Amino acid sequence: MIGRLNHIAIAVPDLAVAAAKYRDQLGASVGAPQALPEHGVTVVFVDTGNTKVELLEPLGEASPIAAFLEKNPAGGMHHVCFEVPDLSAAIARLTAEGARILGDGKPRIGAHGRPVIFLHPKDFFGTLIELEEV
Amino acid sequence: MIGRLNHIAIAVPDLAVAAAKYRDQLGASVGAPQALPEHGVTVVFVDTGNTKVELLEPLGEASPIAAFLEKNPAGGMHHVCFEVPDLSAAIARLTAEGARILGDGKPRIGAHGRPVIFLHPKDFFGTLIELEEV
Repeated sequence: MIGRLNHIAIAVPDLAVAAAKYRDQLGASVGAPQALPEHGVTVVFVDTGNTKVELLEPLGEASPIAAFLEKNPAGGMHHVCFEVPDLSAAIARLTAEGARILGDGKPRIGAHGRPVIFLHPKDFFGTLIELEEV
Repeated sequence: MIGRLNHIAIAVPDLAVAAAKYRDQLGASVGAPQALPEHGVTVVFVDTGNTKVELLEPLGEASPIAAFLEKNPAGGMHHVCFEVPDLSAAIARLTAEGARILGDGKPRIGAHGRPVIFLHPKDFFGTLIELEEV
């Protein structure tokens, strides 16, 4: 079912500082910041060739990463995203096995314009897993 | 400098349970457990095609992930590993920029038989970063 690791997301308190550090100290290929107000984040993509790291900074009052940064003020690994070919099939299989989907259990459109769901981290060993239909 | 994302590591309290869940619920390509006593972990590789997830369970008394699991008993994302072509050059660049390397600052042989270092998570927004020479 799950295919490629699409990205790992790292929440940071200051995106400009984090992007500069990835670029200047780690010598990474770092893109320009993109504000995604409908997702409550500003994102910088770090292209690693085989996948990407998404550096996330909260945007707006109701950012989905605000609570995480309150608990982890320095930042930290926030979630991991795997690609699936058929999100409806994935949802059917996962819910049949008892896994919980965050929110209303239905896909929404993610930061890449494709349908996504998030699985409850308590069902996956403390790891927030995003599934994106690709 | 940094190249491919070699793996993300997820620490789990029970490797058999975690491996079964990745295989049966997520439909992932999951390998057999490998005990790495010299690294204090037992590992299961999840092959995502473009990179891998390493599920880690403590092995022995002085496991490097024991403290993490004490703080996060359910498990969680532990570190991310990037490949570098020349670890000595990477160390020189990073330390010149003020980044701290864990331990004595010298490479040791990692779980894949290649030289690795770990960067201080306080210098990288709460994320433990491994660099592996490939």
